[in-house]
Amino acid sequence: MGNNQEIKNVSKATIGRLPAYHRYLKERQAAGEMTISSTAIAEDLHLNAVQVRKDLAVISSVAGKPKLGFEVEDLIEDINKFLGYDNVTDAVLVGAGGLGSALVGYDGFRNYGLNIVAAFDTDPMLIDTVIGGIKVFDAQELSKLVRRLNVLIGIIAVPRGAAQKVADELVEGGVRAIWNFAPVHLSLPTNIAVKNEDMAASLAILSKRLAEILYSEK
Amino acid sequence: MGNNQEIKNVSKATIGRLPAYHRYLKERQAAGEMTISSTAIAEDLHLNAVQVRKDLAVISSVAGKPKLGFEVEDLIEDINKFLGYDNVTDAVLVGAGGLGSALVGYDGFRNYGLNIVAAFDTDPMLIDTVIGGIKVFDAQELSKLVRRLNVLIGIIAVPRGAAQKVADELVEGGVRAIWNFAPVHLSLPTNIAVKNEDMAASLAILSKRLAEILYSEK
Repeated sequence: MGNNQEIKNVSKATIGRLPAYHRYLKERQAAGEMTISSTAIAEDLHLNAVQVRKDLAVISSVAGKPKLGFEVEDLIEDINKFLGYDNVTDAVLVGAGGLGSALVGYDGFRNYGLNIVAAFDTDPMLIDTVIGGIKVFDAQELSKLVRRLNVLIGIIAVPRGAAQKVADELVEGGVRAIWNFAPVHLSLPTNIAVKNEDMAASLAILSKRLAEILYSEK
Repeated sequence: MGNNQEIKNVSKATIGRLPAYHRYLKERQAAGEMTISSTAIAEDLHLNAVQVRKDLAVISSVAGKPKLGFEVEDLIEDINKFLGYDNVTDAVLVGAGGLGSALVGYDGFRNYGLNIVAAFDTDPMLIDTVIGGIKVFDAQELSKLVRRLNVLIGIIAVPRGAAQKVADELVEGGVRAIWNFAPVHLSLPTNIAVKNEDMAASLAILSKRLAEILYSEK
């Protein structure tokens, strides 16, 4: 996963928009379109056209041609390469409850280069069951199995009280990137990549926007 | 939800950190601590101390005192007020499948000022069941019930193909803020607040960080 040959200094915002371009271009391709302009992409995705052109310049090997625009297939291939959608990376999921199950079922992570190879839980009722095609193992085996499977990405979907212990065991097993859905700050070595999904933070941002809109209408 | 009397121009980043301060301060309070310094908060949450001081200055009515620091209880109260955790806002959830159920069970949204009063689905197997204490209604009733319940926030956890229709019906029912978990860009009037949770975007960011770390070690 990720294009190791050439790591450009690309902003998080640009990287975050690439999956949306990818989905959109796949739709256009399915609809039979061969070329597309950055203006059309910007309009359909409600983005700024200058921003779209800058984003595409970062990932695209060929510039769009005046009037003709970009080849849809080339752009899809460029995003595939940039985001590493071509080389699928193995991951483990820790926590096979409601959120964990939902993540396993989420709209095909495999299309995004992520292959969940095993799940872990402490609940005897869940151990040895199968969720979304993935077998649930005893969390006591975590470090050992992660090392044996040579997995680089760990997804944490356990209650917050258990998250740090799980993170430590993942790192002990050789994981180098953690996707953390527990609402807690993890203490980790600096050479471990972390992405936190804090639902309370998202909700706070939405609520503030709502308050601003309602206030402006007073 | 939200402090309508006084809408300050506060950055998304600051607002996004407030729930973490809140959780941390509640823990300190439970541990019997009465006062706390911004330096201690910064250290424990692995944040920059200057940033923490700036964040707290935005929401706090009283400045921290040199040497003594902040009163823990006052700070919690200030964040409660700022984020509207005191006045709980009603919300509906559309999509009662895996992700929807997980969201209903997520670590007590009620503590964050969000009260999910009803869920909706199109699946006859789910309609009239109860998930996490919330009744699931027929999605055909969506606009009508949202209007009757006077709900301001709609949470979308349906497959992407259904998301725009659901969003339109929520707006028709009077919803003013949409929390969108479907991986699709919604077309909405500008006076509707939206927060998108795009798992593919998050994963792309994590993968790039991982690639950078692995590359730097070559």
